[in-house]
Amino acid sequence: MAPHKAPDSTRRSDRSRRAIHDAALALVGEVGYARTTIEGIAARAGVGKQTIYRWWPSKAAVLMDAFLETAARQAAEAAGAGGAETGGTYEIPDTGDLAADLKLVLRATVDELNDAATEAPMRALAAEGIVDPALGAQFVENLLEPQLQLYVTRLRAAQDAGQVRADIDPRVALELLIAPLTHRWLLRTLPLTHAYADAVVDHALGGLLPRAGA
Amino acid sequence: MAPHKAPDSTRRSDRSRRAIHDAALALVGEVGYARTTIEGIAARAGVGKQTIYRWWPSKAAVLMDAFLETAARQAAEAAGAGGAETGGTYEIPDTGDLAADLKLVLRATVDELNDAATEAPMRALAAEGIVDPALGAQFVENLLEPQLQLYVTRLRAAQDAGQVRADIDPRVALELLIAPLTHRWLLRTLPLTHAYADAVVDHALGGLLPRAGA
Repeated sequence: MAPHKAPDSTRRSDRSRRAIHDAALALVGEVGYARTTIEGIAARAGVGKQTIYRWWPSKAAVLMDAFLETAARQAAEAAGAGGAETGGTYEIPDTGDLAADLKLVLRATVDELNDAATEAPMRALAAEGIVDPALGAQFVENLLEPQLQLYVTRLRAAQDAGQVRADIDPRVALELLIAPLTHRWLLRTLPLTHAYADAVVDHALGGLLPRAGA
Repeated sequence: MAPHKAPDSTRRSDRSRRAIHDAALALVGEVGYARTTIEGIAARAGVGKQTIYRWWPSKAAVLMDAFLETAARQAAEAAGAGGAETGGTYEIPDTGDLAADLKLVLRATVDELNDAATEAPMRALAAEGIVDPALGAQFVENLLEPQLQLYVTRLRAAQDAGQVRADIDPRVALELLIAPLTHRWLLRTLPLTHAYADAVVDHALGGLLPRAGA
């Protein structure tokens, strides 16, 4: 958004940006990251190459922006549906029931990962980041870490409320919650379902060891 | 191994296979999976293309075999160093101390993932499997699942011994142990260290919730 521009020009810019994002996501999904070019994105979006170069330095930057925009839109939709939203990421609710709050956001994550509209380009970008450290670092910094920090915040609040052990490291704890979902999605070992999200939360919160008096 | 062949012929075959495996791993590490060809592997291994086609139907099959062979060799080395080995995978020891046994194998996994000699081809194969479901399924079936089943076996033994809660699903529990390591390795979020492996085991076993009397 560019609030100081004339409304017509802003609307045109927004329309072009959105068309370029959609073209980039579609192309990467169809032909992979390596064979996606700025020329191809421009042709598909119906804009000139120079329009893209004016706004973004590289195809990686276009894609990253497209994913950030998608994340922001999904978060806004979630906010409309009752969730809270900040800067393109979901706030994790704090109802006082940690298990319920975590299940809510992890089920939403399952739905996002299983979304047929974004799965192919997300996979292409993840695969490219695995073999290209610079792109991987951008992905982690711009898209992943802001989301992970929400878990740190929620788990710290639970610690303050005495609902999570004081000796737990929130950064390690969130990986026990998030990584199993990523693992199933990336490697397709077993179905990635809401029931699985719930089971991960229950196993991580309760731990594997017997509990005294249980 | 082909025990019924004459020793000289067997030795020659083993040498050729090993040269082909090494060439395939090196090439994939250097130019990526997509640009690795049977011709390139043959040239680098100093064998004819037909030698490769006699033993393997595709470059994916060569690579998968190379990784299985590497896993078997590492397991044999671990067995020589005091670990137990079965069919190219580590047995998880059962000393009666579940935390210590899990830390031992997860530290070994950290070392394997951080091994500079295999990191590039492992990343290339993982990335390819993420965008190619057929290759991904082969990877999971041949390389990953046999290792995951060892965790199921060890966790079931711990359940039988009353050291893990009866209501834990070993298949979910092992993902809480393994997935965080894979997550750090694939996405390079934070350093993948022995201390991290230990922390994952402690968090997963103890759980995040306060324990009665703790």
